[in-house]
Amino acid sequence: MTSRDAQGDAPRKVTELPLGIAPTVILVEPQLAENIGMTARAMANFGLSDLRLVNPKNGWPKKGVREAASGATHVLDRATLFGSVAEAIADCHYVLATTARERGQMKRVFSPDDAMAELVAREGQRTAVMFGRERVGLTNDEVSLADAIVTFPVSPDFPSLNLAQAVLLVGYAWRQASGRAHLPFSGELLSPPATREALVALFGNLEAALDTAGFYPPEKRDIIARNMRDMLHRMSLTEQDVRTFRGALRALTRKGT
Amino acid sequence: MTSRDAQGDAPRKVTELPLGIAPTVILVEPQLAENIGMTARAMANFGLSDLRLVNPKNGWPKKGVREAASGATHVLDRATLFGSVAEAIADCHYVLATTARERGQMKRVFSPDDAMAELVAREGQRTAVMFGRERVGLTNDEVSLADAIVTFPVSPDFPSLNLAQAVLLVGYAWRQASGRAHLPFSGELLSPPATREALVALFGNLEAALDTAGFYPPEKRDIIARNMRDMLHRMSLTEQDVRTFRGALRALTRKGT
Repeated sequence: MTSRDAQGDAPRKVTELPLGIAPTVILVEPQLAENIGMTARAMANFGLSDLRLVNPKNGWPKKGVREAASGATHVLDRATLFGSVAEAIADCHYVLATTARERGQMKRVFSPDDAMAELVAREGQRTAVMFGRERVGLTNDEVSLADAIVTFPVSPDFPSLNLAQAVLLVGYAWRQASGRAHLPFSGELLSPPATREALVALFGNLEAALDTAGFYPPEKRDIIARNMRDMLHRMSLTEQDVRTFRGALRALTRKGT
Repeated sequence: MTSRDAQGDAPRKVTELPLGIAPTVILVEPQLAENIGMTARAMANFGLSDLRLVNPKNGWPKKGVREAASGATHVLDRATLFGSVAEAIADCHYVLATTARERGQMKRVFSPDDAMAELVAREGQRTAVMFGRERVGLTNDEVSLADAIVTFPVSPDFPSLNLAQAVLLVGYAWRQASGRAHLPFSGELLSPPATREALVALFGNLEAALDTAGFYPPEKRDIIARNMRDMLHRMSLTEQDVRTFRGALRALTRKGT
């Protein structure tokens, strides 16, 4: 199977794309350059790269699409154009259709998470997710070419999801289902937790300073001191935190005497 | 605490908003009308409604923001304006800051799912998620006003997430964590599954028709018939499906004889 490269270059075999990796995204008759560009960006955010366009309205390429992609031009540059859904899905082994409403079709209906788990389980197969036109979605005939349906758990009060937002949710769910959802950084402490010896020394410094300052009503001294130890425990202080805290306490004590 | 209504109306108490429901979304110095409108739309998609804007760049209201909200004007209409992050979070009990990169701050770092589970657990508290400027995000000082950090499991090759897309992911994760992620329709079969009696009768019709048509090589008849029964089983036919299938078979048999 060949298709026209979306940038107007010579036909190329789309079967050269790697199998069993991220799903292909198929936009059927998308209208707005912003949505196509934002789709490319959303795909790139989660590691999807195969974008197929079926008859974009008012031609292709569209003015403003690269700006909307905000740097995800590698997705736009390899996007491919097709004349029909049947051609766009020809080399796929499993195809999902996104729809916002019941179509009376007796297909399995997946949440994004379950849908992406199904795709991830199809290792070695080329999988695709189809998204319909901005206003009217996919036709029932187009939906009937899909193996199953994906729909989104939107609020019934405002279910209208933007096209690129729908693609983003599929990309996000795929990244999670495929075990690639690593955070770019962790909350690992930059300094090790304080030893209890350091913490107990801090308690001692603080309580001595407050004794000197006449802070405690004598009959409540012990209960207030224990409450403050609880507050300090809740801070999960690191070694560095304890050093900072003791330094601040020394400065305050100098100032106060 | 009072704040100016984003539409320029008289001050109103923001503490009138319901507690313990969806998190507040705070955009800090957002620049583009499209992003603010799309944020409102994304919030409405997942049932979030309290939008706060800290010093939107180039003033407020912005031209084009209502169009970008695509009908989610109820979120824009009740949006509130603030002069600083400290004021915007004043009545909140727990605040998350979204950041795309490590800030050297010793805070917990959550994925969207874990972050929203944490918010949902804080029933009765007003919670908020802060999002920074389009290009540079939140300042370290602003991050230091948050209890913890949320970051997104984006591809390291293309981590730049659009502002409204980030809000969408938070809304989606909140809807899932809060147990509200119901799909708008299910894949329940519109007709009950076929009884095995109906299915076995279909096998009989099909095999008789193929016998008559001379389809089977005699030595392979039984194995081919069993393989076709397997194919039919994989279709999980309903009562209606069996009726349709048997009708089609009758039509083909009439045509063929």
